[in-house]
Amino acid sequence: MPSRDRATVRDVAAATGVSIATVSRVLNQQGSVAPETRRLVEQAVEELGLRAPSPRGGTAKPVDGAVYVRCPYVLTDYFGLIVSSIAETLDRHGRQVILNAGEATQTEQVLSRLPAQRGVGGAILILPPEPAEEVVRLSARRFPFVVVDPRTTLPRDVASVSAAHHSGARQVTAHLTSLGHTRIGVIAGPREWLAAGARLSGHSAALADVGILPDPTLVRHVEPTTAHGYGAAAELLDQRPTALVAFNDKTALGAMQAAADRGLSVPGDLSIAGFDDIDLSRATTPQLTTVRQPLQEMGRMAVSLLIRLLDRHDLEALHVELATELVVRASTARPRLVG
Amino acid sequence: MPSRDRATVRDVAAATGVSIATVSRVLNQQGSVAPETRRLVEQAVEELGLRAPSPRGGTAKPVDGAVYVRCPYVLTDYFGLIVSSIAETLDRHGRQVILNAGEATQTEQVLSRLPAQRGVGGAILILPPEPAEEVVRLSARRFPFVVVDPRTTLPRDVASVSAAHHSGARQVTAHLTSLGHTRIGVIAGPREWLAAGARLSGHSAALADVGILPDPTLVRHVEPTTAHGYGAAAELLDQRPTALVAFNDKTALGAMQAAADRGLSVPGDLSIAGFDDIDLSRATTPQLTTVRQPLQEMGRMAVSLLIRLLDRHDLEALHVELATELVVRASTARPRLVG
Repeated sequence: MPSRDRATVRDVAAATGVSIATVSRVLNQQGSVAPETRRLVEQAVEELGLRAPSPRGGTAKPVDGAVYVRCPYVLTDYFGLIVSSIAETLDRHGRQVILNAGEATQTEQVLSRLPAQRGVGGAILILPPEPAEEVVRLSARRFPFVVVDPRTTLPRDVASVSAAHHSGARQVTAHLTSLGHTRIGVIAGPREWLAAGARLSGHSAALADVGILPDPTLVRHVEPTTAHGYGAAAELLDQRPTALVAFNDKTALGAMQAAADRGLSVPGDLSIAGFDDIDLSRATTPQLTTVRQPLQEMGRMAVSLLIRLLDRHDLEALHVELATELVVRASTARPRLVG
Repeated sequence: MPSRDRATVRDVAAATGVSIATVSRVLNQQGSVAPETRRLVEQAVEELGLRAPSPRGGTAKPVDGAVYVRCPYVLTDYFGLIVSSIAETLDRHGRQVILNAGEATQTEQVLSRLPAQRGVGGAILILPPEPAEEVVRLSARRFPFVVVDPRTTLPRDVASVSAAHHSGARQVTAHLTSLGHTRIGVIAGPREWLAAGARLSGHSAALADVGILPDPTLVRHVEPTTAHGYGAAAELLDQRPTALVAFNDKTALGAMQAAADRGLSVPGDLSIAGFDDIDLSRATTPQLTTVRQPLQEMGRMAVSLLIRLLDRHDLEALHVELATELVVRASTARPRLVG
């Protein structure tokens, strides 16, 4: 049990099985919460103790030392989870978040202006679309920043956080070969992405473990969307694979739709695995086998690296890889015996 | 076709069918884009013309006049889409976004400190968990802000943007009654939420249109999560409804799982409809009939109201409701004839 001065609203929610929103309503003496729920929450608050809102949190701190968070994508599950986690963690550190988000900001020249920006102490760049040279130039100016999920290889003096793409992909392919699959199609991400390359190499490693050489005709590089997943799967199915591994859950969903359109049952005729473990992966029938990316943890780690850079002017940057986890659900199974 | 000085990266992406990320890579002369794709994009850029990055965009503007965006929830589809749209639109207006997000920030005392905060010119509050009195106090201090998706009724002098909950719910229930359903279970949102009340009243109105009185035993108020949707549906199914309308797509997904666990086929034995039209609604089998909330448009409208308040000190606040759209997919059908 958390010690008296450590419990948070989250702990109370976890202890009672009630949502954070409801705990919050009880604490704010607000709205109509069912009396038994209210009692449950009040009792848990009493037992656990509840940390007073941090005096450093929220809007207490002036914007000097604010952190610029650039995520030039739509904040749906994947990016949204990372950004929420970053915002929450920075808030806990009493740092304000200046957000630059949305696809329309992708082509903006942002990086070169960051060091001169008033009130901004550092930055977190999520899957930056800028060429590596531009990121390196920012680093040369001694501006503190951390890259989350870099697209391309970055030099050692740029701090970065990413998921363990290679080992995650290796795990999922090993899961398939252990079921007996030998002909596995790959819906890979964009060819120039670091993640796409690392995952392909993990895939090849798992195949090599069982004495199979990767077959380039079984690989398609596409943008990571459901529509592109559908298109890639439709092409790959002509090659008669017994399983497909997809770059993410969205492309895996596209693959499931392509399989359904051909009258193939999943996992009976075709096993399909995703990557990410976003909500989508539990909405499909069958539910998706996938590789969970530690998105929240990536956000927290990015903040923690940045705070180190900011507080200690510790310029020994780190490349951190966080472990992924294979989540086996119902979309993968033994291949049918082929006569 | 957009005029020469108006085309954006988004227009080029739309015209070529290539993703914004790829257009961006071509423009930045970056990474390996397939030669034919590159040519396609370059040609479109030439034909459409491309707007130069706005000098006001990005980090150009100092943080004075920044907009504080409070969204104390995890930024998944629903909230993430609203926040992305707000961030993108404020960026276009040369305004910086200070983000306060994540469930852990729900209990923070933020509102009372906003007017005194250096560099902050206004705020956008998304589904604020604070009691209405606190929101009203902020308004009394003449601090400019807009509420998106208010939980409770706000006085006329507080600007707000929400979806047309009543008419959206009325549409979806009317769709079901037109198919022949008369016994429709409702997985409603938290009892004290404005949206939950407005949707129930839309539901009742549609029933009344065909001479049916609402049956309180067919309504369950729950938190809008998949797990709660499952629980509510499991209870409602004991009442033998032929259809269920859910507060959102997540609770509808829970209802589909509850139906599957009882061996009920959707839509054969039971029609199910959601609300929101997030990605999830196209991942289920069958795909969900749902009500599309104009989330991007809500974000844009919130910014546009706020800019009016900021620029013109125009204190005549508006309550804006944006129309929803019924999206009929495969999870709703005529009820089986009951003997």
